[in-house]
Amino acid sequence: MTSYSAPNVDRAATTAASMPPPADSRDRVSQFMKSIQDEICQSLEEIDGSGKFQQDQWERPDGGGGRSRVLKQGGVFEQGGVNFSEVWGSQLPPSILVQRPEAAGHGFYATGTSMVLHPCNPYVPTVHLNYRYFEAGPVWWFGGGIDLTPYYPNLDDVRHFHQTLKDACDRHHREYYPVFKRWCDEYFFLKHRQETRGVGGIFFDYQDGRGELYRGPDAEGPAAQYSRTLDEVPQRDWESIFGFVQDCGKAFIPAYRPIAEGRKDQPYGDRERHFQLYRRGRYVEFNLVYDRGTIFGLQTNGRTESILMSLPPMVRWEYGYEPEVGTPEAQLYEVFLKPQDWLGIEG
Amino acid sequence: MTSYSAPNVDRAATTAASMPPPADSRDRVSQFMKSIQDEICQSLEEIDGSGKFQQDQWERPDGGGGRSRVLKQGGVFEQGGVNFSEVWGSQLPPSILVQRPEAAGHGFYATGTSMVLHPCNPYVPTVHLNYRYFEAGPVWWFGGGIDLTPYYPNLDDVRHFHQTLKDACDRHHREYYPVFKRWCDEYFFLKHRQETRGVGGIFFDYQDGRGELYRGPDAEGPAAQYSRTLDEVPQRDWESIFGFVQDCGKAFIPAYRPIAEGRKDQPYGDRERHFQLYRRGRYVEFNLVYDRGTIFGLQTNGRTESILMSLPPMVRWEYGYEPEVGTPEAQLYEVFLKPQDWLGIEG
Repeated sequence: MTSYSAPNVDRAATTAASMPPPADSRDRVSQFMKSIQDEICQSLEEIDGSGKFQQDQWERPDGGGGRSRVLKQGGVFEQGGVNFSEVWGSQLPPSILVQRPEAAGHGFYATGTSMVLHPCNPYVPTVHLNYRYFEAGPVWWFGGGIDLTPYYPNLDDVRHFHQTLKDACDRHHREYYPVFKRWCDEYFFLKHRQETRGVGGIFFDYQDGRGELYRGPDAEGPAAQYSRTLDEVPQRDWESIFGFVQDCGKAFIPAYRPIAEGRKDQPYGDRERHFQLYRRGRYVEFNLVYDRGTIFGLQTNGRTESILMSLPPMVRWEYGYEPEVGTPEAQLYEVFLKPQDWLGIEG
Repeated sequence: MTSYSAPNVDRAATTAASMPPPADSRDRVSQFMKSIQDEICQSLEEIDGSGKFQQDQWERPDGGGGRSRVLKQGGVFEQGGVNFSEVWGSQLPPSILVQRPEAAGHGFYATGTSMVLHPCNPYVPTVHLNYRYFEAGPVWWFGGGIDLTPYYPNLDDVRHFHQTLKDACDRHHREYYPVFKRWCDEYFFLKHRQETRGVGGIFFDYQDGRGELYRGPDAEGPAAQYSRTLDEVPQRDWESIFGFVQDCGKAFIPAYRPIAEGRKDQPYGDRERHFQLYRRGRYVEFNLVYDRGTIFGLQTNGRTESILMSLPPMVRWEYGYEPEVGTPEAQLYEVFLKPQDWLGIEG
């Protein structure tokens, strides 16, 4: 897939706002997005032991296309979807133009990789990753992140996950982890449930090198309260941010693999399975009501099957469910579905 | 529950736009909404044979409250929810103010009953009903409808359902059925799937007696194409529209009961159950992505458990599913998930 027919970025105009990208920016980012898809799929097949990814290559009628890979009914993963796409068009949807009015009237180019895993064993957390890159007229930016959604509480797992992400962030900027960790808590928040989706991770959007790291609020929840006071940082160039995004992408495997491998053979029964299916309902609610990537895809006539690949293979809703006091399920709600300072550094 | 603390309607101002409601409008409509909830629950328990509705009475912190009734794991219904609510507040949400700018700056009052049934047997269709009434400053209106979502094709059932609704409509105005049937096709349309939710029924909104029956478009789909040329009708008063809504509410039992009773004992196997769970996914997609009532509820800090009572107890998603050519499942897609002139009257 080439981007020859995609609209050109207006390189002269970018300097006013942010430092211009290199001439081969799209090729480099889309190559990286493909390579991360390859690496992730290979690693997940190793963890799974029996499941294999099947690929669908597709073209988008309005410009671009992608390759969707799905693993179904594996040994560890009930379903795993890893999607690469590279699309372009004459105009960004209104929801993005509100944040980047400079892009109005310009064509756009977007490439990214996203992944959602729904494990069989309720002790293995669901995990989501998405990294994306946009160019539109005078502006470009990177966005994305990674977040973990456990069904059962395990503090060591959560700390390992966050520490791995923090290490990747700290190699680039000491403000990245604290800012993007809080942004993640804020973004993956179900307002109508007053719950976080899980234990978070990192999330960022509109990273164009300009001083402002954070652009919110995305939601009104407890996390929003402490995310609004973040400092500005010096301007950064395209290479610096791309390097950071690459390190984030590469951090997924060390962050998640030990957790999945450590929990995949833990015995469980109907009770845990039942709770897992119930909690998966929240994943559906988040993705269909709030998720920016899902809404972008549906608004730009994306490939519906690839966009909704994130939805779980089996889900339950139960009117009026509440966990019994003193159970691990109750502990999940009390401790793990609230923004927390997992590494004790937010002070 | 009383509405004494709800903001008053500005009766003098209504005359400019539509004929004013009677002084006891809120009491009369909320009484009706409660009585229809009672009648529906009683009839559903008779059909079900073993399941009983459990009621939760609740108050809304910002004003008003409701009574939610749920039947779980019955003989015929895997889950049925019938919800009455009566709420008020200082301002309607933006999504409604776009349609009724006259209501801006005024308090509002809203009451309604809604119902969704998820039957056990895949040969029994899912059905949804909602009727609602609003007052806000100088404006008032009725909205709602009823629509059927079969899992397996049965033309006789669909015709019976539509004929019963048409008879109720025709007693009030000969334009109601043709206009509101098309509006239903347009409203219950999943743009990202290019499918109707089911075989439709009737749907209307913003019925305030002014000449315009139809206010669209709600979606961009095939149905939108033929819904835009509808004629205006003479102005109608509040009593006339309330009488129509009452007849619509009463039409539910004769429209649905023979279908449920005729199909509830039809034998089925894993294949039909599997397909039913898959199709329920579309119900979730519609309610969370498009449904006006769901979005209104979540935007106005409604009671989440009552709003999401419409979601099915068990659901499946399957990447890349397509029905096999020549099967009943394929026939559902080819014939029953497209707008159709079921009664042969649309010319």
